[in-house]
Amino acid sequence: MNRKLRMGMVGGGPGAFIGDVHRKAACFDGGVVLVAGCFSRSAEQSKAMAAELYLDPARCYAAYDEMVAAEQKLPEGERIDFVSIVTPNDSHFEITKAFLEAGFDVVLDKPMTFDLDQAIALRDIVRKSGRVFALTHNYTGYPMVKLARDLVKQGKLGTVLKIVVQYPQGWLIKPIEREGAKQAEWRTDPSRSGAAGCMGDIGTHAENLTEYITGLRIKEICADLGTVIEGRVLDDDANCLVRYDNGARGLLFASQISVGELNGLRINVYGSEASLYWRQEDPNELRVYAPDGTICTYRRGTDAIGALSPAAARATRLPFGHPEAFYEAFANVYKNATDTMRARMDGRQPDALERDFPGIEDGVRGMQFIETVVASKGQWVAFPKA
Amino acid sequence: MNRKLRMGMVGGGPGAFIGDVHRKAACFDGGVVLVAGCFSRSAEQSKAMAAELYLDPARCYAAYDEMVAAEQKLPEGERIDFVSIVTPNDSHFEITKAFLEAGFDVVLDKPMTFDLDQAIALRDIVRKSGRVFALTHNYTGYPMVKLARDLVKQGKLGTVLKIVVQYPQGWLIKPIEREGAKQAEWRTDPSRSGAAGCMGDIGTHAENLTEYITGLRIKEICADLGTVIEGRVLDDDANCLVRYDNGARGLLFASQISVGELNGLRINVYGSEASLYWRQEDPNELRVYAPDGTICTYRRGTDAIGALSPAAARATRLPFGHPEAFYEAFANVYKNATDTMRARMDGRQPDALERDFPGIEDGVRGMQFIETVVASKGQWVAFPKA
Amino acid sequence: MNRKLRMGMVGGGPGAFIGDVHRKAACFDGGVVLVAGCFSRSAEQSKAMAAELYLDPARCYAAYDEMVAAEQKLPEGERIDFVSIVTPNDSHFEITKAFLEAGFDVVLDKPMTFDLDQAIALRDIVRKSGRVFALTHNYTGYPMVKLARDLVKQGKLGTVLKIVVQYPQGWLIKPIEREGAKQAEWRTDPSRSGAAGCMGDIGTHAENLTEYITGLRIKEICADLGTVIEGRVLDDDANCLVRYDNGARGLLFASQISVGELNGLRINVYGSEASLYWRQEDPNELRVYAPDGTICTYRRGTDAIGALSPAAARATRLPFGHPEAFYEAFANVYKNATDTMRARMDGRQPDALERDFPGIEDGVRGMQFIETVVASKGQWVAFPKA
Amino acid sequence: MNRKLRMGMVGGGPGAFIGDVHRKAACFDGGVVLVAGCFSRSAEQSKAMAAELYLDPARCYAAYDEMVAAEQKLPEGERIDFVSIVTPNDSHFEITKAFLEAGFDVVLDKPMTFDLDQAIALRDIVRKSGRVFALTHNYTGYPMVKLARDLVKQGKLGTVLKIVVQYPQGWLIKPIEREGAKQAEWRTDPSRSGAAGCMGDIGTHAENLTEYITGLRIKEICADLGTVIEGRVLDDDANCLVRYDNGARGLLFASQISVGELNGLRINVYGSEASLYWRQEDPNELRVYAPDGTICTYRRGTDAIGALSPAAARATRLPFGHPEAFYEAFANVYKNATDTMRARMDGRQPDALERDFPGIEDGVRGMQFIETVVASKGQWVAFPKA
Repeated sequence: MNRKLRMGMVGGGPGAFIGDVHRKAACFDGGVVLVAGCFSRSAEQSKAMAAELYLDPARCYAAYDEMVAAEQKLPEGERIDFVSIVTPNDSHFEITKAFLEAGFDVVLDKPMTFDLDQAIALRDIVRKSGRVFALTHNYTGYPMVKLARDLVKQGKLGTVLKIVVQYPQGWLIKPIEREGAKQAEWRTDPSRSGAAGCMGDIGTHAENLTEYITGLRIKEICADLGTVIEGRVLDDDANCLVRYDNGARGLLFASQISVGELNGLRINVYGSEASLYWRQEDPNELRVYAPDGTICTYRRGTDAIGALSPAAARATRLPFGHPEAFYEAFANVYKNATDTMRARMDGRQPDALERDFPGIEDGVRGMQFIETVVASKGQWVAFPKA
Repeated sequence: MNRKLRMGMVGGGPGAFIGDVHRKAACFDGGVVLVAGCFSRSAEQSKAMAAELYLDPARCYAAYDEMVAAEQKLPEGERIDFVSIVTPNDSHFEITKAFLEAGFDVVLDKPMTFDLDQAIALRDIVRKSGRVFALTHNYTGYPMVKLARDLVKQGKLGTVLKIVVQYPQGWLIKPIEREGAKQAEWRTDPSRSGAAGCMGDIGTHAENLTEYITGLRIKEICADLGTVIEGRVLDDDANCLVRYDNGARGLLFASQISVGELNGLRINVYGSEASLYWRQEDPNELRVYAPDGTICTYRRGTDAIGALSPAAARATRLPFGHPEAFYEAFANVYKNATDTMRARMDGRQPDALERDFPGIEDGVRGMQFIETVVASKGQWVAFPKA
Repeated sequence: MNRKLRMGMVGGGPGAFIGDVHRKAACFDGGVVLVAGCFSRSAEQSKAMAAELYLDPARCYAAYDEMVAAEQKLPEGERIDFVSIVTPNDSHFEITKAFLEAGFDVVLDKPMTFDLDQAIALRDIVRKSGRVFALTHNYTGYPMVKLARDLVKQGKLGTVLKIVVQYPQGWLIKPIEREGAKQAEWRTDPSRSGAAGCMGDIGTHAENLTEYITGLRIKEICADLGTVIEGRVLDDDANCLVRYDNGARGLLFASQISVGELNGLRINVYGSEASLYWRQEDPNELRVYAPDGTICTYRRGTDAIGALSPAAARATRLPFGHPEAFYEAFANVYKNATDTMRARMDGRQPDALERDFPGIEDGVRGMQFIETVVASKGQWVAFPKA
Repeated sequence: MNRKLRMGMVGGGPGAFIGDVHRKAACFDGGVVLVAGCFSRSAEQSKAMAAELYLDPARCYAAYDEMVAAEQKLPEGERIDFVSIVTPNDSHFEITKAFLEAGFDVVLDKPMTFDLDQAIALRDIVRKSGRVFALTHNYTGYPMVKLARDLVKQGKLGTVLKIVVQYPQGWLIKPIEREGAKQAEWRTDPSRSGAAGCMGDIGTHAENLTEYITGLRIKEICADLGTVIEGRVLDDDANCLVRYDNGARGLLFASQISVGELNGLRINVYGSEASLYWRQEDPNELRVYAPDGTICTYRRGTDAIGALSPAAARATRLPFGHPEAFYEAFANVYKNATDTMRARMDGRQPDALERDFPGIEDGVRGMQFIETVVASKGQWVAFPKA
C-alpha cells in the first residue's frame, strides 16, 4: 500500500481535547493523512474546524450519515480508508455501526459504548463486518507497558499474586461542570457518559491496563463508589477490591477529586518471583523488584529492552534518553492499527506485533467492568459473562 | 529529676530485633540508662544478654514476676523507674499488668495485647494505676508525620476526603517460618500473634498512622484477607475498603508477600484544599499537593517546618540535610514518654508536646481494628464500640 | 496564510536520526507539509527516502543546488516556503547560504557551522537576506525551560550566583565509530564535525540552555578536554570551569563516555533568593528551591504555570499529567519559527512569543564556545568577540 | 574487654552541634560510656554541660591539660580509655598531641589540623605514640559508601574514568556570622578555620569520600575559589577540575551559598564497565548503571548487599526498609575505631573490617587538599608530597 492512508474523523470539533490528540497521533508517523470529517453536530463548527485544519471544504460534513454516504460514493482512490470516531460515548454505537457496515475500518475512542448491551451488539457487528476495529486504550501503547506485559508473559514475575492499580486525578474537585467546563460537562452527565463517571472515564483504563499487562481477567469486584461533590450524579471517586481468575487479589481505585494528582495512572504487579511498577507520568521507565532487594530500572530504548521485548522496541522511535510520552504512545495504537489495515489491503495477515492494539474484546471488557462496579454497591459481584 | 531514668526490660534476648531497637531508642538522647532486665524465659539466655549489655548480673532476672518483686524491694534511688516490655503479643497483658500494679511506668511494644478483651481490661488497669503508659507505634514519632498531622489540624488540607494508606512488605514470600526464622515463627503463629497475621503486625501501624495524621476514626471496614503461602494459617496479605467518621472513604492495605517491597508504609491524604504524601522509607520529606498543580516538598529541620509544627521541630535533632531515620523516630516516642514521666516525677503536668506519644487508646483502637478486619470476611463491618 | 507551509529538506536520508525528528517536529502541529527534498548525496538513497515518505518523485533531488534552482522556478503556489537542513556540520554553511540567497527561510540543525569564521560569515548573510533563520537548539523548546527562563527574568531567583550544567552521555564508551555506527562516525571525525567532538555535539546544547535560561553570557572558560577512547581524535569527555558576565561562577561538563547516562542534560541555577533545577529526561517538571528549605515542583500544564509563563503555556498542548517530551519540544522550535514565517508572509511583525526560537546569534555563540574550549587547554581563555 | 569503654570529650559545650553528634554516635551501640569532659574553655559552661549530661562533676574539667593530668592519675579501672576532640580546627593539634602523648587513644573531628605542617607533625606523633587515632570523616561510615568502595575494588566498574563529586549547601547565603550564628562564626574566621572556608569544612569531605570509594588519589587540581558574600574572607563557593593518579578526570565542587541545597554531598563514579551514584540525603540506596541501560538500585540491608560487601553488612543494624541515616553512619566510625581499641586492649590484631575507619593518612590528605586548592588560584597545581 504505497501511499498514505486517508483518514476521516467524526467529532473533534473546536476546543475538543481528544480529537486533536487522535489527529496528531494518527499522522505522527507519516503514514496517514486526514482528508475528511464531520467535526461537530453544528455545520458551522464543523466547517470552522475543517478550515483550521486546511481541509478541502467539500470533504467537511454536517452529519455523520451524510459523511458515510458521500465517502462511499467517492472513487476508491479518493475516499477515506478508515474513520476515527471521537464523539462522547452515547453516540459511539450508531456511528461506528454505520461506518463498519459501509465497509470502513474504524478507530474508536473509549469507553466503547453507552452500555454493555450496545457493546455486545457492536461485537457482533464488528465480527460480521470483517473490518479492522481499534479502540484507543492508549496507555497500552507505551513501550514500557509492552515490556511489562512481555516480562509477565515470559514468567519473570512467577505467578502474579497481587495487583494494585490506581488512577487518581483531581481536576473535578470543584463542580466545574456547572461553570461551563466542556470536558467536565459530558463526563458528569449520565445521559452522555453512561452509568459511571470516574469509573467509566478512567477506571476502565486502569482495568484495561491491568488485564493487558498481566493477562489475567477480573473475576469479581467489591466496589465502593462515591460522589464527593454535592449535586453531582455520577461517581467521582471509587475504590474496589478485586479478585482475578488465577486467584490473585488486588485493589483498583480511581478518582477525579484527589487534589494535586494530575493523571496519576500507576500499577504495581506483585509476583511470586519478582514485582513491577510503572507510572504513566514517568512513562520511559519500568521498575522490576527482585527478591534479593535490588530494583532494576529499565529505560526505554536501551539495549536491555530490545532483548526482552520486540513489541517495546517496535513502539519506540527515539534513542534512549530522548523521552517519548503521551502522544507517541497514542500514536503506537494508530501505528499498529493502520499497519494491520495496510497488511489486509496488501492481502497478507498482519503479524502479532502489528495486531497488538486494543479492540472489540477490550471494549466489551470495559463495559462489563462499568456495569459490575455500578452494580456492586459495596458487595462482591461476579463479572458478567459476555 | 536531675538524673538519668533507670529502665528495665522484659524480653529482647539474644537475636531479638525489636528489643535492641527499644534499648537504643530509649538511651538515644542520653536521659535513660538500662539497669535491669528479664531478657528471656531462659535464665541462661537472659544472663547472656545481660553480659552482652554489661549489666550488673544481680539485676538480671529469669522471670518477670521475680523482677517485679525484686525491683520493688530496691531502695528508691536504685530501682527502675519504668519498664520496657518487648515480648510477643500473647504475654503483653499479664506482664504489663504486673508492672503497672507494682507502680512502674510502662513502655509496651505493639500490638498491645492478644485480643480486644485484654485490651479493654488493660485500659481499666492503666486508668486505675495512674501510671504513664506508652505504646510504641513508632511511625508517629517521625517529625514529618507530626508535621502532616499539624497541617491537617490547621486546616491546610480542608476537609479530608480520601485516604490511601498501604504497608507492603515482601519478606514472607517463602514459608521461612518453617525454616527456623525466629521473626517469622511467632508472627505466623496464631497462639502467639493473635487472630491476625499481617494485619496485626503491620496493618495496625497503617491504621494508627492514619488516625494520628488525620484525626479521623475508622467507622467501617470491608476487608479481604488472604493467605498466599500454602500451609500458613494467618493472613499474609490483606486489602480493605474503609469509611471514616467524617464521611471520607479510602483504602488500607498491607502485605508480607509483596516481593521487593521492604518496609513500604506510605500514605496519601487527599483533602478538599490540598493533599499530602509521606513514605516511611524516605522519612525526611513530606509532600503537599496544591490545587494549582504545584507540589511543595517540606524537608525535616528546615525553617519552614519550625513555623508550622513545633512538634516536628522538637522531634528533630540534626540540622537539615543530615538525615534522621527509624531509630530517631523510635527515640522520639521514648523521649516524649520519658519526658512525661519526668514531668510527673517533678510534680508538674506534662505539656501537649510531651504528651505526644501513643498510649492506651491507640492500643484499644489497634485491637478493635484487628477484630474488625478478621470479622469482615469481605463484608462491611462496623468498628466495635470500646 | 490560510494553508500549510510547504517544507523542503536537505539531508535526513535512510537511517538518519535527526532528519526524521525534524520531519515529525515540523509536521506535528498540522501547519507544515513536507513536499520536496534532497535527502542524500546519493540520488538513489534520496529517491528511496522520498518513496518512503510518499513524496512526489519529481520533487526529489540529487543535489541541494539542483533543488534550489528547481524550487525557485516553481510557481509561488507550489514551491517550498522554507527548507530544513539536517546534514553534518561541514556542509551547513554552503547549503544554508544557497537557500537564503535564493529567498527561502531556513531551519538549520546545530552546531551551526564548521567553524567560527563560517558562523560570522553566515550571520552577515542572514542579516542581508532578511529571511527567517532558525537553529534547532531544541532543548529550549521545552515548556519548563521557558518557565525557568521567565522565573529568572522576573527576578524570582534574585541574582544568579552559580550555575552547574552538565550533559553526560555514555554511548561512545566503545570505539563504535570503527564498527560502522553511522551516528558515531561523523561525530568523531574532525573533517566533518569540526574542532570539537563531545563539546560540539552536546556541550553547545549545555551552553545554549544556560544562556537561554539565565540571560547571562559566558565571559571566560577554563576547559579540560579529554579523549578517553584510544585512537579517537576529538574530545569525548570535557570539564569546564566557567565565569559569567555578571560575576557568577560555575561548571559546565559533558561526556560521551559516562556509562549508564543516556541523554542526561541537567542544570542547577543557584540564585541569591532561590534556585532551580531541570533535567531533560524528566522534562515536565521544574523544581524551585526556596531559602526556607521547601522545594516547589512546577508541573507542565498546571494552573501555576499559566500565571507565571505565557511562553510555557503556549508551548504546551496536552493537559497536565499527560506528559509531553522530546518531539513536542522540538516541535515548539518549529512552531515558533513557522509562526514567525507566517506572520511575515501575512505582513505583520511576529510577537515576542512567536520570535522565541533560537537563531543566528545562538549559532555564533555556539561556535565561539567550541573555539574557546578547544583553545583553552586547561587555561582560562576569554570568550572571543564576534 | 568485658566492659564499656570510658570516653572523655574535649569541646562540645552547650549549643555545639558536632559534640552532641559525637556523644550520641559513640554511645549508640552500647559499648561506650561518657565519663569525663572539658566541654568549654569556660569552666562555668563546661560544668553546665556536665550537669546536662548527668556526669560526675569531679570529672568535669576547665582545661584540657588539666584533664590529661587528672585522668592520667586515676586508677586504671576508672580513667578514660579514649578521648573525643571536637573543638574548632585551630586547637586540634595541641590537644590531640597532649592526649596521645599521655597514652590515650583519640577520636578527632575533621579537618584534622589548622594547616598541613601541623598535619605532618601530628602524623609523626601518632606513629610514635602507637595509639589508635580516628578522624571522623563520617560519610565513609555509610553502609552504601562501603558497598560502593567494594564494588570498585572488585572491578565491577572496570577502570574508573571520570568522577563528579559535589557538596552543595546553602546555609551561608546571608552573612549570618555577623548576626551571632555560632556555627557560622568560626567556620568563616581564618584564625580558627585555617586557609579555606567552604573547601576546608566540606570540600575535604568530598575529597575524602572520593578517594575512599575509588581508591584513587588526586594528582592535580585547578581550583576556582569564590567568595560570594561581601566582607567574608574565606571561600564560600568553590569549583575544581581534578586529575587522578590513574589518569581519570573529574570535577569536585562545594558551596555554602547554593540556596535550597541542604547537605547535598553526592558522587558519580563513571567506569569503563559500569557507573555508580550515591547521595548523602538518600543514603540507604546506591545506584549502579550498566552499559545496557539498566540501573540497579541496591538497598541497605538486603540480601544482595551481604553477598557483595561484608563491610556494608557489618555497618548496618536494622532490617531492610527501616532506614538508617546520619547518626548511624557516624556511629560506624566509632564502632570500628573502638573495636580496634578493644582488639588491642585484648592483645589481638584488629581485622580489616575493624580497621575500616578514617585515620591519620586521611587527615594529611585533607590538609594537602586544602593547601592545594588555596594555592591554585585558577591554575593547575600538583598535590604536594607528604
